[in-house]
Amino acid sequence: MKELKDTTEVLIRFNEADPLGIVWHGHYIRYFEDGREAFGKKYGIGYLDFFKENVVVPIVHAECNYKKSLKFGDSVVVETIYEPCEAAKINFRFNLYKASDRTLVATGRTTQVFLDKDTQTLLLNNPAFFEEWKQKFVK
Amino acid sequence: MKELKDTTEVLIRFNEADPLGIVWHGHYIRYFEDGREAFGKKYGIGYLDFFKENVVVPIVHAECNYKKSLKFGDSVVVETIYEPCEAAKINFRFNLYKASDRTLVATGRTTQVFLDKDTQTLLLNNPAFFEEWKQKFVK
Amino acid sequence: MKELKDTTEVLIRFNEADPLGIVWHGHYIRYFEDGREAFGKKYGIGYLDFFKENVVVPIVHAECNYKKSLKFGDSVVVETIYEPCEAAKINFRFNLYKASDRTLVATGRTTQVFLDKDTQTLLLNNPAFFEEWKQKFVK
Amino acid sequence: MKELKDTTEVLIRFNEADPLGIVWHGHYIRYFEDGREAFGKKYGIGYLDFFKENVVVPIVHAECNYKKSLKFGDSVVVETIYEPCEAAKINFRFNLYKASDRTLVATGRTTQVFLDKDTQTLLLNNPAFFEEWKQKFVK
Repeated sequence: MKELKDTTEVLIRFNEADPLGIVWHGHYIRYFEDGREAFGKKYGIGYLDFFKENVVVPIVHAECNYKKSLKFGDSVVVETIYEPCEAAKINFRFNLYKASDRTLVATGRTTQVFLDKDTQTLLLNNPAFFEEWKQKFVK
Repeated sequence: MKELKDTTEVLIRFNEADPLGIVWHGHYIRYFEDGREAFGKKYGIGYLDFFKENVVVPIVHAECNYKKSLKFGDSVVVETIYEPCEAAKINFRFNLYKASDRTLVATGRTTQVFLDKDTQTLLLNNPAFFEEWKQKFVK
Repeated sequence: MKELKDTTEVLIRFNEADPLGIVWHGHYIRYFEDGREAFGKKYGIGYLDFFKENVVVPIVHAECNYKKSLKFGDSVVVETIYEPCEAAKINFRFNLYKASDRTLVATGRTTQVFLDKDTQTLLLNNPAFFEEWKQKFVK
Repeated sequence: MKELKDTTEVLIRFNEADPLGIVWHGHYIRYFEDGREAFGKKYGIGYLDFFKENVVVPIVHAECNYKKSLKFGDSVVVETIYEPCEAAKINFRFNLYKASDRTLVATGRTTQVFLDKDTQTLLLNNPAFFEEWKQKFVK
């Protein structure tokens, strides 16, 4: 089984660095989202693709391990890896690298579930279009 | 005619200060919004009050003049002053002070218009409930 | 041993809610920081207290489990609990509640380490003032 | 005299749109900064170029006129135009366009002054390197 992966680069904004001169830790959650969206565009499962299917995919778990700091002037390379699972969930793993020298600066993961957009109820099974997506890309 | 005014205090967050150790200028727009919301709560014209009337009040103009810097550890006092006008608009003026010594750090203003929430069309006259509000508070 | 805890309330800003009308998940990391800072003010170990001792305390791990959504108009109650540990680290646990009905909306934790502010090197032992703090408050 | 201009494109992030589904007005200030930075990279006067010269260039005035809304899924084209002036200031004008159809969505301007980085005192004349820059590019 091949690993589904996307790599995208994000420019660090001046206002994302804090008084210590380093990127504030909360922004890494944003870089993960940038990674998920780039992955979603590449493989057809972005937020807007889900909306069209009347499904929303809220985050139920997010975590980040910070290894090195990032500074204003750096760019961050976001590697987003889809982690297959049996349950009605979407799991991604992330590796963040400093663009200039490819130092690993952080790792993380997020878990999303499926909600019916109108009723906001949890879907206990994968929506049909996502099952098809898995058939096409994951297996 | 009396001046309609609200004063609220906002704690500056660590992540709102930039690598120069001072609050990033973009956040002042947020403090203006904090001021408008505090004003809205006090006088019954917050965002949610407008929603109930099927009206949204987007910003069409915002400006800020920066006089002194704010640091992490400071609190900012936001003075929000309603500026009456004939047109179907809402104008506010803002004065931001450092809480500790009441130094004036910035002034600004915003203008909002009325849109029908469903059709997103511009209302050329004040909505009835806002006209009533003006009768009650502004004259 | 008594549990060291702080409880603070944070008003949700309009711009913290996303197109789904609910607070964007990344902002919870900010509420954790609001909680840590309120705890730090109460017990004398805020960011600025560390700076004075020439120590910075970067986050090396953060995680959040999302259980319910928050909306604009809600306030969030942040419960911050200090978790004692032997290592040269600071661990906090967080419980976020919707202020109106005390529903638990999220739980999380963060880990911080100590760096010398000038050399940016990791301190392998607790700084003296933090050891004193632990003697005073934790034991 | 030729007009100095840069055009850059910024992807709108999910978390930049508010509960009305449109980009929160405060983020436009950020797009202006993205524009200034892209201009600065192109012409050698980014924040970091100033730092190297021991000069910081804080914003003293910012304003934005909002004409149309932007949605998540849109990209915004930021046109940044340098406006020559005699005083020791940097003035930029901005035009924001929706990338898909080039609708003008907002206009704005910012003014920056020069401060000595160490003393934080206002420079009443252009720093030498900026005077050279003007000789080279503006005249």
